[in-house]
Amino acid sequence: MSKSLRAFISASVIIVSLMLGASAGQRTPESAVKEIRAVLDRQMLAWNRGDIEAFMEGYWRSPDLTFFSDNTAVSGWEETITRYRTRYQTGGNQMGKLEFLDLKIELLGSAAAFVRGRFHLSGSGNESTGLFTLTFRKLPGGWKIVHDHTSTAS
Amino acid sequence: MSKSLRAFISASVIIVSLMLGASAGQRTPESAVKEIRAVLDRQMLAWNRGDIEAFMEGYWRSPDLTFFSDNTAVSGWEETITRYRTRYQTGGNQMGKLEFLDLKIELLGSAAAFVRGRFHLSGSGNESTGLFTLTFRKLPGGWKIVHDHTSTAS
Repeated sequence: MSKSLRAFISASVIIVSLMLGASAGQRTPESAVKEIRAVLDRQMLAWNRGDIEAFMEGYWRSPDLTFFSDNTAVSGWEETITRYRTRYQTGGNQMGKLEFLDLKIELLGSAAAFVRGRFHLSGSGNESTGLFTLTFRKLPGGWKIVHDHTSTAS
Repeated sequence: MSKSLRAFISASVIIVSLMLGASAGQRTPESAVKEIRAVLDRQMLAWNRGDIEAFMEGYWRSPDLTFFSDNTAVSGWEETITRYRTRYQTGGNQMGKLEFLDLKIELLGSAAAFVRGRFHLSGSGNESTGLFTLTFRKLPGGWKIVHDHTSTAS
């Protein structure tokens, strides 16, 4: 085998190893699903101690966040927290107890996912149940909800 | 420069070129957005000529397709077409005229996307408007809706 050919093969092996190393450095799908579940768990805990700010940490802090609720579309993180405050912290309404059920977290590539689930809200002025679909993106600050579609009985 | 070093550099150049070539072979984001829009356009046209089967071609033909409508979750392509037939082709109900408005198609990596929009349905027994969120995946048969969340006024 010529010296050049050996050098060529060595280069190939090194480059392929570096590529594999880089991909091994990425988180596994299992850990991404766990990270997303942790965001939802933190949201549920935050809601249940009445902390809307901590609950809102699960959402992308951007004017481009969107929140669809039944027939109403809201744009923006500020507008979304205002909606929550109006519905659950004013006029004698309380946040009550929130539960997420039937969660199905599905990755869409390495930096996006969508989550299907059901919520139950009890002990508040707005007792309700319904379905939600969340679109998550992996951003510099971690996995964040960039779009929430929630619906109740029509 | 030694022969080995030259061979090493040649190998690196070839491998990086191959990698760039492979990524250039992928469709551009613009064409993916166009393909998804074409799926939705075909759905709208199919609906408006009363062809539920052609409308359903936009959906993933799988038991794992999910369809959330207000507070009801349906699983499966067959169950979804049955729901459409029951609501829009029985008991004197008609399909009417369907329009998609305010479409926002956003890619999530190279093989997934989500679409936000509003629908208007007129001239049917079920006059309505509402919001939808669609999760698309690029499958061997093209871009397909794998999850549909639709909601109307609660």
